[in-house]
Amino acid sequence: MNRLLIAAAVSMIVSLFGTRLLLKWLTEHKIGQPIRSDGPEGHHTKAGTPTMGGVAIVSGTVLGYVISDFFGGIYTLRGIFVLMCIVGGGAVGLLDDWIKVVAARNRGLNKRAKIIGLLVVAVGFAFLMTEFTSVHTTLAFTRFDNPGWELGRIGWMLWAVLLIIATTNSVNLTDGLDGLAAGAGVICFAAFTLIAFWQFRHLENYSNPAALDLAVISAAMVGGIVGFLWWNAAPAQIFMGDTGSLAIGSGLAALSLSTSTHLLLPIIGGLFVLETVSVILQIVVFHRFGGRRLFRMAPIHHHFELAGWPETTVIVRLWIMSGLCTAVGLGIFYRDAIAAGFTA
Amino acid sequence: MNRLLIAAAVSMIVSLFGTRLLLKWLTEHKIGQPIRSDGPEGHHTKAGTPTMGGVAIVSGTVLGYVISDFFGGIYTLRGIFVLMCIVGGGAVGLLDDWIKVVAARNRGLNKRAKIIGLLVVAVGFAFLMTEFTSVHTTLAFTRFDNPGWELGRIGWMLWAVLLIIATTNSVNLTDGLDGLAAGAGVICFAAFTLIAFWQFRHLENYSNPAALDLAVISAAMVGGIVGFLWWNAAPAQIFMGDTGSLAIGSGLAALSLSTSTHLLLPIIGGLFVLETVSVILQIVVFHRFGGRRLFRMAPIHHHFELAGWPETTVIVRLWIMSGLCTAVGLGIFYRDAIAAGFTA
Repeated sequence: MNRLLIAAAVSMIVSLFGTRLLLKWLTEHKIGQPIRSDGPEGHHTKAGTPTMGGVAIVSGTVLGYVISDFFGGIYTLRGIFVLMCIVGGGAVGLLDDWIKVVAARNRGLNKRAKIIGLLVVAVGFAFLMTEFTSVHTTLAFTRFDNPGWELGRIGWMLWAVLLIIATTNSVNLTDGLDGLAAGAGVICFAAFTLIAFWQFRHLENYSNPAALDLAVISAAMVGGIVGFLWWNAAPAQIFMGDTGSLAIGSGLAALSLSTSTHLLLPIIGGLFVLETVSVILQIVVFHRFGGRRLFRMAPIHHHFELAGWPETTVIVRLWIMSGLCTAVGLGIFYRDAIAAGFTA
Repeated sequence: MNRLLIAAAVSMIVSLFGTRLLLKWLTEHKIGQPIRSDGPEGHHTKAGTPTMGGVAIVSGTVLGYVISDFFGGIYTLRGIFVLMCIVGGGAVGLLDDWIKVVAARNRGLNKRAKIIGLLVVAVGFAFLMTEFTSVHTTLAFTRFDNPGWELGRIGWMLWAVLLIIATTNSVNLTDGLDGLAAGAGVICFAAFTLIAFWQFRHLENYSNPAALDLAVISAAMVGGIVGFLWWNAAPAQIFMGDTGSLAIGSGLAALSLSTSTHLLLPIIGGLFVLETVSVILQIVVFHRFGGRRLFRMAPIHHHFELAGWPETTVIVRLWIMSGLCTAVGLGIFYRDAIAAGFTA
């Protein structure tokens, strides 16, 4: 447990001061985020806000993980692969953010290049996990010890790739209001810290350093995002950019895959699902019903804004929704654990 | 665990819709909160915002507790006394709020009447707990099973009264920015839900319905405050008023006393301590050093505002601080539990 606290604390401090330095550097070099020109009008004033805050989150997480291992831990392949997935997702996002600010347009990498980058990260993660670790290749909800439907290696790899792509894009869509994705990310990673720590304490085949490593990385992500949120709180002084949202998304997917709770992820990350579904529904309804719009604007957080909710109200209410989803997910997890004869 | 979820869910729904109704009724009757005339100028626009939202929190908690008991629970004296303390604190606050809005001044009950009201609640709680339940009358940190310094009945009662008065006043001071006290309250009650539930699952002399009752009440408070926060999020449509802050304060104190973790309370509720200390320091420095001010304004959240932080930034940053304090408190709790040979 010391390692969890150390990882979270180191990561938070690195991210807190790292974001500050980044903010200064980006402002000095006049590097700011272009804003989608078709977004709500109130958001046009946000043009020029520094972005790429995700760099601080990822740096904090890596340092938190490395330093915590000095305190009686050992590096495990499982942990390193998850960390590589986070760093990889962040790197794709960083490239995208960088092209955006240099080209001064809100498009960045063209979509195909971004997907190819994420595919490389996802396939790499799926291959390494199945090749070098004893990850369960089953479709698993919470019954990690007695998991469900065996997918086989190729099936699980396909599923893993799909989940990583879907999660990164969902977090990316959610990242449209000051602190929204960061706050929801803190809640979700806190849940995975609890899940991985529980597995480490209670499951025999998990009570090895690998499971603790996963909890450590998760705790480091919590710390890193909290440190960043300090500066990202409304009105945001800096955005996480794709660097942040892709790192958060790939981290959540990789942790749910490595803890064999990937069917729980859509519940814990219910807010991200809601945002994504709102975009899909909007597009489907628009095309099916001759240009009619289901929401005033998608993703759904813009709908609420245009419905007259002040931005900060939308943020706090969506955080509340995110917290409720995560509470339900953790409730299911612990209930299954108790049903399986463990103590919660 | 079902009871926890039911209590939290019922309380949240009651509070969510209850606050809406209250808001409508108060607006129709033009009952609004006068704002301290010596506060930051930006706050003067808040005059007239409906208050007494705490009524919805307390109603939700009582109903959540009662209804959850239909599902296989039994009422215990310990739980009922804690609930009485919450309702009592809320009632003193309600009287105060009511006088405030009727007299249209930001003073309410005169200070002495308010303290007397709280004293009645606190002494009543301390007497009932020591008379009718087997509460430990020791000064306890986390070693509930092997508690520290025996205070004796009278000593413990004095300590309990002091703690209740101090906590209610601290929460009251903290309640000065939209959603600040509510958010911190959610975090603290979530911590006490975990603590009480852990005691119920692991300690022999606690594994009776009494300990679960405490977790149920705590979960109901989480739900009730979340439902209220939906409307209280910046920019607030309604304030909790003294009804809310005194209920939250007496609830936190009563739960820490009944779970024998009252020395942990100042850590878990570190934000409330910080706010109170800032007021005390401000007064001491002012009187000692001939009218010099340590902070631009006390409580400290106004200092940050006057230092140029936007209100929402102050709120989110103080929530982060509150979360950190609670994390440290829970870390100490679980570490002691592991050190005492339990599983976390």
